Amino acid sequence: MLEVIDLNCDMGESYGIYTIGTDEDMMKYITSANIACGYHGGDPSTIRRTVKLCIKHEVAIGAHPGLPDLFGFGRRAMAISPDEAYDMIVYQVGAVSAFAQSEGALLHHVKPHGALYNIASTDPELAAAIAEAIYRIDPRLILYGLAGSELLKAGRNQGLRCASEAFIDRSYQADGTLTPRSQHNAVIRNVELAAAQALQIVKHQEVITAVGTTIPIQADTLCIHGDSTGALQYASKLRQVLEAEGIGMKAM
Amino acid sequence: MLEVIDLNCDMGESYGIYTIGTDEDMMKYITSANIACGYHGGDPSTIRRTVKLCIKHEVAIGAHPGLPDLFGFGRRAMAISPDEAYDMIVYQVGAVSAFAQSEGALLHHVKPHGALYNIASTDPELAAAIAEAIYRIDPRLILYGLAGSELLKAGRNQGLRCASEAFIDRSYQADGTLTPRSQHNAVIRNVELAAAQALQIVKHQEVITAVGTTIPIQADTLCIHGDSTGALQYASKLRQVLEAEGIGMKAM
Amino acid sequence: MLEVIDLNCDMGESYGIYTIGTDEDMMKYITSANIACGYHGGDPSTIRRTVKLCIKHEVAIGAHPGLPDLFGFGRRAMAISPDEAYDMIVYQVGAVSAFAQSEGALLHHVKPHGALYNIASTDPELAAAIAEAIYRIDPRLILYGLAGSELLKAGRNQGLRCASEAFIDRSYQADGTLTPRSQHNAVIRNVELAAAQALQIVKHQEVITAVGTTIPIQADTLCIHGDSTGALQYASKLRQVLEAEGIGMKAM
Amino acid sequence: MLEVIDLNCDMGESYGIYTIGTDEDMMKYITSANIACGYHGGDPSTIRRTVKLCIKHEVAIGAHPGLPDLFGFGRRAMAISPDEAYDMIVYQVGAVSAFAQSEGALLHHVKPHGALYNIASTDPELAAAIAEAIYRIDPRLILYGLAGSELLKAGRNQGLRCASEAFIDRSYQADGTLTPRSQHNAVIRNVELAAAQALQIVKHQEVITAVGTTIPIQADTLCIHGDSTGALQYASKLRQVLEAEGIGMKAM
Repeated sequence: MLEVIDLNCDMGESYGIYTIGTDEDMMKYITSANIACGYHGGDPSTIRRTVKLCIKHEVAIGAHPGLPDLFGFGRRAMAISPDEAYDMIVYQVGAVSAFAQSEGALLHHVKPHGALYNIASTDPELAAAIAEAIYRIDPRLILYGLAGSELLKAGRNQGLRCASEAFIDRSYQADGTLTPRSQHNAVIRNVELAAAQALQIVKHQEVITAVGTTIPIQADTLCIHGDSTGALQYASKLRQVLEAEGIGMKAM
Repeated sequence: MLEVIDLNCDMGESYGIYTIGTDEDMMKYITSANIACGYHGGDPSTIRRTVKLCIKHEVAIGAHPGLPDLFGFGRRAMAISPDEAYDMIVYQVGAVSAFAQSEGALLHHVKPHGALYNIASTDPELAAAIAEAIYRIDPRLILYGLAGSELLKAGRNQGLRCASEAFIDRSYQADGTLTPRSQHNAVIRNVELAAAQALQIVKHQEVITAVGTTIPIQADTLCIHGDSTGALQYASKLRQVLEAEGIGMKAM
Repeated sequence: MLEVIDLNCDMGESYGIYTIGTDEDMMKYITSANIACGYHGGDPSTIRRTVKLCIKHEVAIGAHPGLPDLFGFGRRAMAISPDEAYDMIVYQVGAVSAFAQSEGALLHHVKPHGALYNIASTDPELAAAIAEAIYRIDPRLILYGLAGSELLKAGRNQGLRCASEAFIDRSYQADGTLTPRSQHNAVIRNVELAAAQALQIVKHQEVITAVGTTIPIQADTLCIHGDSTGALQYASKLRQVLEAEGIGMKAM
Repeated sequence: MLEVIDLNCDMGESYGIYTIGTDEDMMKYITSANIACGYHGGDPSTIRRTVKLCIKHEVAIGAHPGLPDLFGFGRRAMAISPDEAYDMIVYQVGAVSAFAQSEGALLHHVKPHGALYNIASTDPELAAAIAEAIYRIDPRLILYGLAGSELLKAGRNQGLRCASEAFIDRSYQADGTLTPRSQHNAVIRNVELAAAQALQIVKHQEVITAVGTTIPIQADTLCIHGDSTGALQYASKLRQVLEAEGIGMKAM
């Protein structure tokens, strides 16, 4: 059983006059934030505001780079080369890192977003390019990725500290990957079920898949989705059940 | 008379399959490069390639942030607020800085591009926001700006080292600002005349304006335009006349 | 006193996963819709959805072209040339027109957005370029613009039918232009006051300015803002007071 | 043996200050032009200029819609839905169509670009969405697509006139699809070989594949690439060999 777990949430995904998420409220519940970098969402002003919220709430500051597809919110797979992946990571992480620096803070971690996260979970070449990019920006950065993924394998090969991520409101397939959002049972909409999945992951390092089997899962960090309806409820419930079990909440 | 002068050139302004400039050739002639950051031109892959060229040719690496207007190449004035200016500077400079870092180098300077350069030359509030952004990213960064401009005034107030820039192929107005590109005599297309203007600036700290008057000008760095036809010729000629006068060429 | 007035509203300004406005609800109150064309807001899927809503609610379909500035929602002035204005009008109006056509409908009018609307209100050259663009796409299109503006003057010179627009929730300056949004009293937030301004415009063709003077105003169409809080309330109240006075509501 | 063939070329792919292709020169050799619509390349000003060139040179005006990926020039596959494909076709085709209309001309055909062309060649659902979009904009539009592709099948099902396209400077795979650009032998760089392939297609309705087999191919139009080095040479040579065989050149 884990004694401490990190709670991370995607943040700063508003764009210009378009607002999504309840970032300020969510900050109270989480221990690390993944800040959108302007490619799939986010903009320079939103990044600054979000970095400041992190500092105020003592939440670890992470970059959340995505594919260059604002219209599709970075959720549409694109056939990018490893070189292109490397370059778009350096660019986006560098931008967010500068905002952290300019507020007197340090960037703590990097977690790819959406389709980039998914491709990097299974494509070793792309995973290696992403890991190398992060390492070359700053070898102290922590790589957040899907537990058991190619991305984390590449991160460890590269010499990066890695955080295995599990999801409380997404269902798993038999092979340990997430059920695609195109399927009806991709998202766990019931707060109790989500909290139960979280506890099972933290206490027993296992999860029940969408097909009913139980698979092992190693998690250092749990992802809370900030853009779903009732996100705050999920977060509040999650903290409550974890606290009740005496589990600490803290970024790596 | 100056004993040493810096020769800077805008670089890395290609985008995707679209190529402009003769970056690799130009590197042989200059001592500092201003690398486009993706807003008015440039893209992550071009930034990386250009940073590597700088390292290979021992050219100082600078960021060249612009307005978010790829179609207009950052040359169309936009009514942005000081906050927006601050944020777009941190974002763009951070991105280029990360490429420098990931190649084992350090960012050396920042020079705003096009319309942003022009607005910051005369608008004290915007100038102050830009200077503050640069200082907060890294107080060791050098600010390049128009000699005598509000931007350099703001930079000095902020505590930044500043490099006064003069132009060899642009004509000056009586008040020391550049003749706008919309006027026919904005650009000096004759190599000999450009070299003469350069020598006059370096040797006598003065320049003859478009209306025939002579005004004082203090320059630490001369700008060579890389995207104009015959840019390499200009650069070659310039080095030749400076060398003939025993003037050294080196970044600050 | 007018017997019939048009009620128009900006629509289709959502982008990708980002939603603003209450388009479907607002359709019940208005008689013509100005659909964002993808430059300052809107996207192809939103345009289609909005065109279909117009057809369903028998609302006249208009294009609402803006400056290419999604981040700034087209509200930041940009120094564009008349040629650039012409081209961006043809492009955006053509795109929305094709959606109307493909749903078996016809584009009815064009109303520039935000900073483009403002610039075209006072700059005769830009106004002429915009009017020419609309005329050359389809001379039957109606041009919506600020009552008394250069844009409408240019439209009439070009041979276009024009609709003079007045605002119910924006205050006017002594010269008949709108109080800029940067000023505290730009927006009339009180529903009763807004309805009173509407009635005064429709019944007496005059409006009380922010400085207390009364100026004449000729209006064929009243603008309702869909993105402000309480937009539906405004719209509902407006219909109620107009109906009470026996004034019809219908697009030109 | 065909008595008449169409020669088409991708055109108007410049963007802002970035220029590619030799559009004006190429117009002399071709009979139909596919004009980039602003998503993968092209911009409103370039579209207008290119439409005018078409009119001047009596070249049929076509729209060349692509994926929203300027950096990747529309060559990177993206996981878009049929609905998204439908919408991006209406948007882009509508924009170019309006430029044709505003110059007193009519849009003649539509040919998808790059990755969109490739996906639509093999994905029946996407192909159907694209065909439906074109039909609903204007049922008289001609659909250009890869000979034997799903796209043309969908076009015929929809009731559109279709033009089967063959390539003179691209090698074919055994199944009739193009050899991907990632392979070394994708492009035929020898002018004589390209001309020979063209003649074989036009005279014998067959082509020799990269693996040496001969397959049947039905072509109404031959594609000439305008952005490759020596494009004009290709075009000139092609016209010469076709003329020598008494084959007419004309758009459908």
